[in-house]
Amino acid sequence: MRSFLSERAKNTERSAIREILKYTQEPEVISFAGGLPKPETFPREGLAESAASQIRDNYEKSLQYGTTEGIKEFRQEMSSWLSEFGLELELKNIIATNSSQQAIDLVSKTFLDPGDRIFCGLPTYLGAVQAFSTFQAEKVGIPLEKDGMNLEILEKKIKDSKSSGRRAKFIYVIPDFQNPTGVTLSKKKRKKILDIAEEHDLLIIEDTPYFGVRFSKGFKKPIGTYDDNGRVITIASLSKILSSGMRLAVVGGPSELLANLVTMKQSTDLCTSTTTQWIAADWLKNNNLSDHLKELRKYYRENRDAMIEEMNRSFPKDEGISWTEPNGGLFIWVTLPEGMDSESVFEKGLENNVAFVPGHHFYVNGGGQNTMRLSYSLLNPEKIREGINRLGKVLEKELSPISQ
Amino acid sequence: MRSFLSERAKNTERSAIREILKYTQEPEVISFAGGLPKPETFPREGLAESAASQIRDNYEKSLQYGTTEGIKEFRQEMSSWLSEFGLELELKNIIATNSSQQAIDLVSKTFLDPGDRIFCGLPTYLGAVQAFSTFQAEKVGIPLEKDGMNLEILEKKIKDSKSSGRRAKFIYVIPDFQNPTGVTLSKKKRKKILDIAEEHDLLIIEDTPYFGVRFSKGFKKPIGTYDDNGRVITIASLSKILSSGMRLAVVGGPSELLANLVTMKQSTDLCTSTTTQWIAADWLKNNNLSDHLKELRKYYRENRDAMIEEMNRSFPKDEGISWTEPNGGLFIWVTLPEGMDSESVFEKGLENNVAFVPGHHFYVNGGGQNTMRLSYSLLNPEKIREGINRLGKVLEKELSPISQ
Repeated sequence: MRSFLSERAKNTERSAIREILKYTQEPEVISFAGGLPKPETFPREGLAESAASQIRDNYEKSLQYGTTEGIKEFRQEMSSWLSEFGLELELKNIIATNSSQQAIDLVSKTFLDPGDRIFCGLPTYLGAVQAFSTFQAEKVGIPLEKDGMNLEILEKKIKDSKSSGRRAKFIYVIPDFQNPTGVTLSKKKRKKILDIAEEHDLLIIEDTPYFGVRFSKGFKKPIGTYDDNGRVITIASLSKILSSGMRLAVVGGPSELLANLVTMKQSTDLCTSTTTQWIAADWLKNNNLSDHLKELRKYYRENRDAMIEEMNRSFPKDEGISWTEPNGGLFIWVTLPEGMDSESVFEKGLENNVAFVPGHHFYVNGGGQNTMRLSYSLLNPEKIREGINRLGKVLEKELSPISQ
Repeated sequence: MRSFLSERAKNTERSAIREILKYTQEPEVISFAGGLPKPETFPREGLAESAASQIRDNYEKSLQYGTTEGIKEFRQEMSSWLSEFGLELELKNIIATNSSQQAIDLVSKTFLDPGDRIFCGLPTYLGAVQAFSTFQAEKVGIPLEKDGMNLEILEKKIKDSKSSGRRAKFIYVIPDFQNPTGVTLSKKKRKKILDIAEEHDLLIIEDTPYFGVRFSKGFKKPIGTYDDNGRVITIASLSKILSSGMRLAVVGGPSELLANLVTMKQSTDLCTSTTTQWIAADWLKNNNLSDHLKELRKYYRENRDAMIEEMNRSFPKDEGISWTEPNGGLFIWVTLPEGMDSESVFEKGLENNVAFVPGHHFYVNGGGQNTMRLSYSLLNPEKIREGINRLGKVLEKELSPISQ
């Protein structure tokens, strides 16, 4: 059987996290491992109405094939939402895709030859890494700081890459409440990273699935808003704010780059579901997205607050454990003292019915043994406190031999 | 910009047919060019009900991410439909994909390295050819006869390929009412093609999007039903019978092969829309698909009959023009006398407000200049007769210099 596989298929492994999730689904386990949004935060009544009316009355379009670019009405609604944040996208600058993941896959398919270099966060989103690996790219990880990638290291790595003769294609960045760390790229670094891309002739793939899930009033403009030279592709998704099941995202950027993505999408799936595009377009037209997002953010913010409060209360103090305090998104990132192994904490956690994802899985070039990703998305504050309390006890025990 | 493109992107061209369709959309043109199904044949009332109830009451699943394999309930309904035709698929032998086109793309992604050989009909479906080209395969066309591929030529080409040292991976076949010709593979050849695959250690990709759209009572069993050795992957779609906009298909086959497709699908789009899968599963559970298909077939059969009747009446006689009489699907294939150029007929047709697709577009290795694809899917019998009548007059004029 293996003799039939392409080199790229031989290169691709199943997501380790999906395997981990299998162990964490026992009912008595309080799991912070998954990263799924809470379906109760989606506007099901409105979506049900939009679905019924679009399928019944607009069947000539909503049940038919559509153009590969996506339907105009959906792209217009998305463009008008994104324009509130400074991203001005005409119709030729925005296409619909079947999820952010497909957008990342299309970008990889369109730009990556085997051996090409890409630059990404260390740690970063595993699904993106998988897509880059499928197209046999070489991934160069750039350590994250509190305000995003370390840009000195980024520049150094780009220069190293040039002198090695490898073709460097793009920088992949999750600017807002990054998965897995919750870190947000500062405004200063957003501008600086674009300068670097400019200087070294790279594209920037800006992936912002959590943009709608932010807790404070301020927001940082997408990198795409500063792009005067057609280097930035911005991916925005509805999967965390309207529905994950509908699989809808958009890609914004220079029309010449998008034209290439559209050509590749033709043979990939002809078009994104017109049924779900029309449902979303109708919902966005007839409902107030801002009001909806206020409710949704309230839910996730309360969960984040509960998690951080309980970490402050239950985690061992003065032992060098630190964590991020994200302003949005679904994840908190915990760093344990150097030398401590989160795999061992994971095993002890399971014995005590609490689960998370050991952080090293998110490191493309190794490392991160002392880190953990915790999601606060699915549980209520009470359960979150109970789980963090359990985890605190596990950490206490794990630390004691070290502090002896 | 071009310097960023991957070799595969440089290799990929936009569908020529989509470009043709632009010219044929003037309201006064009677167009047989497109291949879209008729949305009125889809069960919009039932789908609207299923959509509303699934989104409102089953939102925890229908708006949430799902497994990459697809949701169990949808795969079970599809499996139970396919079992009526002898294809026995357990859950591990069937996965959901985001359309047949995605299935073809995943097969290509999983099995094809640059330079690998695949064998396909001459002519064949252009979307498949595009996917094979994207993954830089070498396409070997096998001429079609009235009962499907010429299998002597297939064997010869496989042997040639072996002696050339190229790796041959699979035979791509559309067994039922093939696009573009309407030809059906005979039962004898279905068994024989499997023997050939067996002898030369190839896979068979069996793509049957029109299987539900058949006019006579009999049907030929899918090649997959004869497969004892895990070589056949069968792709079945809902795009022609329930909705094209929902983008739903399934892939049936040996579990080891499917496991590889699932691994590749993970990084492609994580999962097929659970929203549309639940809508389809609910509709299939609560409605009688056979009754629905009876109505749908009646519509297409009447159109086919009108087209063939009018061809008999209006096309020049005794001039060597022939056409297929398909037992299902959406297309009739016309062969003009050798030396006649259907591109010239196309241009004259447009001047006379009638359009079709010149057949050479469907030939992967050149040829087919004297062929045309006509779809009877979208127009009513009256319009079909009028369009064929116009085309008959164009053919008459085009033939006169030849017969002089």
